[in-house]
Amino acid sequence: MPKLWNETIDAHRAAVREAILDTTAKLVAEGGLRSVTMSQVAERTGIGRATLYKYFSDAEAVLLAWHERQIAAHLEQLSDISHQTGTAVERLTAVLEAYAGIARQRHGGELAALLHQGEHVTHAEQHLQGMLQHLLAQAAQAGDLRSDVPPAELAQYCLHALTAAAGLTSQAAVTRLVSVTLDGLRPHSLTY
Amino acid sequence: MPKLWNETIDAHRAAVREAILDTTAKLVAEGGLRSVTMSQVAERTGIGRATLYKYFSDAEAVLLAWHERQIAAHLEQLSDISHQTGTAVERLTAVLEAYAGIARQRHGGELAALLHQGEHVTHAEQHLQGMLQHLLAQAAQAGDLRSDVPPAELAQYCLHALTAAAGLTSQAAVTRLVSVTLDGLRPHSLTY
Repeated sequence: MPKLWNETIDAHRAAVREAILDTTAKLVAEGGLRSVTMSQVAERTGIGRATLYKYFSDAEAVLLAWHERQIAAHLEQLSDISHQTGTAVERLTAVLEAYAGIARQRHGGELAALLHQGEHVTHAEQHLQGMLQHLLAQAAQAGDLRSDVPPAELAQYCLHALTAAAGLTSQAAVTRLVSVTLDGLRPHSLTY
Repeated sequence: MPKLWNETIDAHRAAVREAILDTTAKLVAEGGLRSVTMSQVAERTGIGRATLYKYFSDAEAVLLAWHERQIAAHLEQLSDISHQTGTAVERLTAVLEAYAGIARQRHGGELAALLHQGEHVTHAEQHLQGMLQHLLAQAAQAGDLRSDVPPAELAQYCLHALTAAAGLTSQAAVTRLVSVTLDGLRPHSLTY
């Protein structure tokens, strides 16, 4: 086949795949992870079940692909924020606020636990850990944050503390959580 | 059968059950959750496989029973600490230190995620949440901890922040994590 034809096919396949994942995102938002079934995804995407099975072997594979895309988008969003203008502590604050917002959306249950065992999650967590570590070290050097605890440990503290956002029902509570978490990072000498 | 006989049987059954769970604890400590198999448990407890199956239907049931006993023991330990003498903030600090030590032992992987979905965990978390909330409210009233954030939210913050202990390799790092977490709880006016 000529090259142009191949490119057209590739573009078509990529577009169908994206449409499938867009539908998955809608189904998850409406009814949670368990509501994603092969028939629902096919019907709502406007493709046949046979076509859907050419892309994904089962609903779990669809969910995994959707989750990978979701995690990648979140990581990109956080990375963009970390590169904005401002001091290290300002950028760190913005990243932590965005991360808490993401953590708040997290789904519970067995299926969510399984998705979060995926390698893509480990990889994203390492990336995020590195990003925070860098900002924490910069902010400590500037004297804005504590320097008596290794940045790697402070990054882990932040990431874990902010997962408490998953149980919060208001944006005000999320803001308070971020503020409490940040207070744990202040220079030690100012705290006492 | 006479009452005494029944009591003897009950005591015997309870003793065998405890012995099975003691073996399970040893196997988990030696080789992790996956190393708990029905044959290993029977052999190391010194009972026949047929007897073991009278107590538990499969390895997952053994693990669940062991985990329930484990969680109950941890909760009792934390409750004892929370009732020791001292100010509220002193007792809270002691509870958080003990909790971080427990969180550090936590196993990872799919099986651990499944165990932690159990109702006994939800129940224990609620109990612990209540315990912390009470101490946090007392300490805030005494002016030792912040009062600008509801105690329920601060309790969630503590419990999540301290799960970071699972990834720490030294006791010194765990101590630093507890200290950072506590700094997040200090009165707001002193932090700035």
